[in-house]
Amino acid sequence: MRAGPSQEEIRRHNLSALLRHVHLGGPTSRAELTSRMGLNRSTIMALTSDLTAAGLVREELPRETRRAGRPSLVVRPESARVYVLAFDIGVDRMVAARVGLGGVILDRREAVRRRGPFDLEEVVGTLVGFARQMLRKTRPDTVCVGAGAAFPGGVCREDGVIRFAPNMGATDVPLGRELSRRLGLGFPVEVGNDANLAALAEQARGFGVGCQDLIFLQGDVGIGGGVITGGRLLGGHEGYGGEVGHMVVNPGGRVCSCGAKGCLEAEVGERALLELAGRYGSQGGRDAVRAIVEAAGLGDRAAQKALSRVGDWLGLGVANLVNIFNPEMVVFGGTLRELYLGAAAQVRSRITTEALAASRETLRLRTSALGEDTTLMGAAELAFSRILADPLAVLARATS
Amino acid sequence: MRAGPSQEEIRRHNLSALLRHVHLGGPTSRAELTSRMGLNRSTIMALTSDLTAAGLVREELPRETRRAGRPSLVVRPESARVYVLAFDIGVDRMVAARVGLGGVILDRREAVRRRGPFDLEEVVGTLVGFARQMLRKTRPDTVCVGAGAAFPGGVCREDGVIRFAPNMGATDVPLGRELSRRLGLGFPVEVGNDANLAALAEQARGFGVGCQDLIFLQGDVGIGGGVITGGRLLGGHEGYGGEVGHMVVNPGGRVCSCGAKGCLEAEVGERALLELAGRYGSQGGRDAVRAIVEAAGLGDRAAQKALSRVGDWLGLGVANLVNIFNPEMVVFGGTLRELYLGAAAQVRSRITTEALAASRETLRLRTSALGEDTTLMGAAELAFSRILADPLAVLARATS
Repeated sequence: MRAGPSQEEIRRHNLSALLRHVHLGGPTSRAELTSRMGLNRSTIMALTSDLTAAGLVREELPRETRRAGRPSLVVRPESARVYVLAFDIGVDRMVAARVGLGGVILDRREAVRRRGPFDLEEVVGTLVGFARQMLRKTRPDTVCVGAGAAFPGGVCREDGVIRFAPNMGATDVPLGRELSRRLGLGFPVEVGNDANLAALAEQARGFGVGCQDLIFLQGDVGIGGGVITGGRLLGGHEGYGGEVGHMVVNPGGRVCSCGAKGCLEAEVGERALLELAGRYGSQGGRDAVRAIVEAAGLGDRAAQKALSRVGDWLGLGVANLVNIFNPEMVVFGGTLRELYLGAAAQVRSRITTEALAASRETLRLRTSALGEDTTLMGAAELAFSRILADPLAVLARATS
Repeated sequence: MRAGPSQEEIRRHNLSALLRHVHLGGPTSRAELTSRMGLNRSTIMALTSDLTAAGLVREELPRETRRAGRPSLVVRPESARVYVLAFDIGVDRMVAARVGLGGVILDRREAVRRRGPFDLEEVVGTLVGFARQMLRKTRPDTVCVGAGAAFPGGVCREDGVIRFAPNMGATDVPLGRELSRRLGLGFPVEVGNDANLAALAEQARGFGVGCQDLIFLQGDVGIGGGVITGGRLLGGHEGYGGEVGHMVVNPGGRVCSCGAKGCLEAEVGERALLELAGRYGSQGGRDAVRAIVEAAGLGDRAAQKALSRVGDWLGLGVANLVNIFNPEMVVFGGTLRELYLGAAAQVRSRITTEALAASRETLRLRTSALGEDTTLMGAAELAFSRILADPLAVLARATS
């Protein structure tokens, strides 16, 4: 703080805060914004007018009101007009979506991805094709204000390059640069680790709202982690923090795709589960994991044993994270949703045995509230971060 | 930000920033403060005058100067006048010190602590006795502006109570409240986890200066962890974060004081080392650990094997932390200093095998720059935080 912020900086900050409120909280009355933001009514009115004039929000009479007197106008995000492009790249699927301000999925495309060495051209070609299809269908008065992509690998903070992604067969892939170049939107496509973005999405719109210390565990073929501590995403020195799937829980155990042995991912990931259930070699993927959980529920002994064993390692991994982070909440997403639901007893038992009482006694365990689209919504939130930081300037650039 | 900060708030912020500069950076010329703080010369002069008038800093002509023209005055902290009380409670020792602004140890007392159930009266009695001895020796114009204590256990953020400390035989001990009551200084004695405070001290005055992502591993009987991520100490939901000593690295391994099996602390702590070296039953403590490292250096095969085995588990633990946090630096303190120096090859080898290349390639490993007093200096920094946040108000209360 060199000197006090200028009037212009204060206005920008307040516009950002108000837009973030309605983006995350949905339609909100002026009266509520006044009390939540701690600003007076005339300031809220001025800010709302600016955002309305820009076409970022709209003011409406509330649908119903029980109070007497003049009802407070409701401010809602212009979800149909202002949107971002969100991409989600998984081991078995590629998703592209147009997501409106407020987090509404307006349009969505999905393709199957074949496993094998990472083919940048195939992935970028598919996603850019989807994006073009969706962009062609938009009305002329709509505006794209950002783009983001979720990827199951380590993303370098400095240059956005995918540094490692053993389950994707990818090393040093300039994904963001290629997507940006091919899309030519006039702004870059931001790339983030899928579990990190899922953690942010869960905190923004899921069970983690208001939660400052949250761990998101994302199961795909491997196990990704997104850690929010003290309200902020753990990035680490170069952006590779949160790789909890490569925490060794069973020294000398199963060989992991990273080269080490006994990583959480090796003991809990798709391959371990399929092998233990005697189903390795059949097609993998989310359906295969679901099938084992279902079979276990129907009494299949091999499936039950596999689930119990994997649940045990998952519980040990979570116990370690509870001791290390003292989180308020751990959220299971992707294939870990089914796996946790099928093996909750093992997971909880391990946490009770292995985690410090003080660190676990207020812990909550949840499955992702946003389901299959958690990572996609995380990519959308990454894309929205630009306009939320400086609404009018970013919108002006996007429409110019 | 409801509105712009007031002139008074800006002044308080700037006074705080300037005092923090000279507290951490030592004597600094006005010219350098001007450029580092991005304020103009007259503002720096006014701030310095205020702090000088309050007796927090002093301005002097520099000892030597090579430039022509009028030399810039040097601002130095009033270390001899303004001080805090710092307490460090370990398994085997209790330390009390008077630490002057700028981090100078002005006076210091140390006592041996016998192992066994935690005796609050003994610990508080000893430390308060030391404090009174030191306070009696101060000149009348000196002023005590804070007090802090480091403790090897989990400290509840809410009420400062030691919730768990298996190696100290302590559960639910209101240490801060008792120290505060007996000292009667007019302000509370703040209590923090020893490894957390050591991490802050290392970042403030050790190898971690300028480092935003640092892990401090403190060896005493057990293993404590202090994690700084994104520049901030990891506390977790209730303040128990960073208990990396209770990360299970060897499921089914040695029984830990926490009740679990195969915790990092159980495999790397004092007892494991002594047992593996065939020396368990003799007196433990830092000297015993040092003796094994020395014996290994002199060719003692049992000591070498013990060190190698423990170093291997330590390396695995650090590799896990590297994957989880992507730290810039890991610092070994307490008995882990000797242990790391004696087993660096094993530790490094495990990190190379087990940690992701991207996360380890810029990693630096260090032994604590502040030596045996790292945790004590951390307690001092905790004690200084009040006056650094609001210099004039806190000083006025302390001298009234």
